[in-house]
Amino acid sequence: MKDLEIKSSFAPPSPEEMAGRIRTIREAMSVSGLTHYVVTSPDNVFYLTNFANYVHERPFILVITMDGPIHFLVPKLEIPHVNIRAIGDLELVEYFEFPAPAKTAWDAHFRELFSAGCAVSVESHCPLYVHSAINHTTTVSDIVDDARMVKSEYEISRIAYASEIALDGLQTVFDKARPGASLFEVSPQCRTHMLTRALFDNPQTNMLATNVNCVFQPPSVSHDPHNFTNMAMSMEENGPNVVIINGTVNGYGTEVERTFFLGGISEASKRPFDVMMAARAKAYELAVPGASMSEVDIAVNDVFRAAGYADNLLHRTGHGIGVTGHEGPFLAEGYERLIEPGMFFTIEPGLYIEGIGGFRHSDTVLITEDGPVNLTPFPDTAEALTF
Amino acid sequence: MKDLEIKSSFAPPSPEEMAGRIRTIREAMSVSGLTHYVVTSPDNVFYLTNFANYVHERPFILVITMDGPIHFLVPKLEIPHVNIRAIGDLELVEYFEFPAPAKTAWDAHFRELFSAGCAVSVESHCPLYVHSAINHTTTVSDIVDDARMVKSEYEISRIAYASEIALDGLQTVFDKARPGASLFEVSPQCRTHMLTRALFDNPQTNMLATNVNCVFQPPSVSHDPHNFTNMAMSMEENGPNVVIINGTVNGYGTEVERTFFLGGISEASKRPFDVMMAARAKAYELAVPGASMSEVDIAVNDVFRAAGYADNLLHRTGHGIGVTGHEGPFLAEGYERLIEPGMFFTIEPGLYIEGIGGFRHSDTVLITEDGPVNLTPFPDTAEALTF
Repeated sequence: MKDLEIKSSFAPPSPEEMAGRIRTIREAMSVSGLTHYVVTSPDNVFYLTNFANYVHERPFILVITMDGPIHFLVPKLEIPHVNIRAIGDLELVEYFEFPAPAKTAWDAHFRELFSAGCAVSVESHCPLYVHSAINHTTTVSDIVDDARMVKSEYEISRIAYASEIALDGLQTVFDKARPGASLFEVSPQCRTHMLTRALFDNPQTNMLATNVNCVFQPPSVSHDPHNFTNMAMSMEENGPNVVIINGTVNGYGTEVERTFFLGGISEASKRPFDVMMAARAKAYELAVPGASMSEVDIAVNDVFRAAGYADNLLHRTGHGIGVTGHEGPFLAEGYERLIEPGMFFTIEPGLYIEGIGGFRHSDTVLITEDGPVNLTPFPDTAEALTF
Repeated sequence: MKDLEIKSSFAPPSPEEMAGRIRTIREAMSVSGLTHYVVTSPDNVFYLTNFANYVHERPFILVITMDGPIHFLVPKLEIPHVNIRAIGDLELVEYFEFPAPAKTAWDAHFRELFSAGCAVSVESHCPLYVHSAINHTTTVSDIVDDARMVKSEYEISRIAYASEIALDGLQTVFDKARPGASLFEVSPQCRTHMLTRALFDNPQTNMLATNVNCVFQPPSVSHDPHNFTNMAMSMEENGPNVVIINGTVNGYGTEVERTFFLGGISEASKRPFDVMMAARAKAYELAVPGASMSEVDIAVNDVFRAAGYADNLLHRTGHGIGVTGHEGPFLAEGYERLIEPGMFFTIEPGLYIEGIGGFRHSDTVLITEDGPVNLTPFPDTAEALTF
């Protein structure tokens, strides 16, 4: 990861890339003595097959065997679509429909994939109805979630591409920034801009793995960072206004957020903004290979606490990004994992003061052996963010 | 349901509406002797609270007690947002963040909601990691899924509103219909049109419970009804082109689909179109209170089989619609439930012939005591659908 040159790409994964992922899963299965690993999470199925399913009642289940094939249980309706998208050496197991008469239903086919003496493991997110269809003792292990945490060079290029689109979208918001610009003027235009670019770049963009969002909050709301209960809200003078661009583009996530000001920055905003920037600098300083994720979060929160803002914290320093825009690992107190090169985090410490507003930037950050590299390097100073 | 006058509404549910839903759940709990029912499905949580959560790693869990409060376990970050959206007599149980140190993590708070001697049941979709956090014996029952199947007058008005928006969107597609109209010209414009109307009607529209889609397929693709692997595909002369509008508007689902033709209908399309229309007429004839859902599907498929199309079927006659656009109950062979007034189904028997195309209309259909009522009554004849 030294001398890193980050390329941007929207090309589909190579068969070798996909085979490498399966190899990693089988290595982990081997360590635990497993013969079968059952994958139900749509994100994990996508990671291992390049196939994103419609997420509703029809089950899509991957059963990876140690020495035999990779079975992919899918409804008949989807088979041509699976054949177009899926990459890798998969053996499709077809069921006609859900629900169906017992003998031809999905679970009848599913049960046949296990044999006497097998050692089966499932994900901790496995739904009970799938788990109870397995007629064998099972263990629980999150092998695929773990494998997803460290990205390949190819995956880095996909997240870099998604991040280019996010930066494009962010610029459209600032192009329209003025007091009174409403969420439902700005948001659909920004989303359409990002989506249109993705589709013009690549008409094969997978819309089942694409979901780009653009929202913002004015200072009267931004202290409550998930409040989008009034889509008529509009940007306000001074600020802090906070804009959020996130989601997935063709199967890979990105996130960029900025606190911004219109006309000027109010006196009351100056110190909280600076403290947020100091906490953020601390996160970039500490987010290096070998560091404890928990300790990064504690040190970042300590910056806020030392400045008297202990009661103004609402969330951890950051979350992972990969085939989704929001996943593990986490820069979170109590999460004891160590940072490794190839991991991605949002770095987004935030400070929330009712009556003044919210203060938070977020970026899509790759950890390299030389430290964090920001893939959404939009200007971050109060001066650069005053329009 | 006699003398039915279907109103359209986007107003939030009344406290009485929400209390009625909880009462239904407690009646079902009482029948099974349960003291606690655990709800993890985001759709079921929304149904019972009017709160739609961001679906990612932070757990949102409802624990309904028989004689005590309704506990709603939520991250601190969301509490103001829960207080704005949620309707009903909920007792919020707060955890700071996910992940977190063991003593303050979500599951520590969750476990305290159960007591010695309690009789707990969970959903069949409950993830194993939630199930294993319950230190008591549990049963599995889908009380909320069952309750959702029959809609109240209020819910009918919400689905009627979503269906108005879908019909609006469908008209924008036909306004642009011409050979060469591409998916990525038509689709974003139609989606923006539907979304903009919803937001102008009601700026409090819940975007976390809104997801409107518009896609179409030309005859070279429409035999493979879930194939959207090339967003540059465009409408073709004659047809069959198939347009799909579906999704949720502010928490309630809708669906309308039409097979359409440009310039004229090819000779090869005439018989399959007519057979599809005959199968559809059979579904409308049989989808009445008291009928077996399985038998409706068998009779509809028999129309196709009798016409020689046994090998051209890919799916059941229809699915339910409610707080999602795609759910139970199902008009599906092997699904033995009986139809009741107040249920919704899509009625969408389809016929798929490689080299000719797909033939399918779909509608959002309410079952009343007088029979099915189509809430998306767009013209359906080949003549009316030739542009």
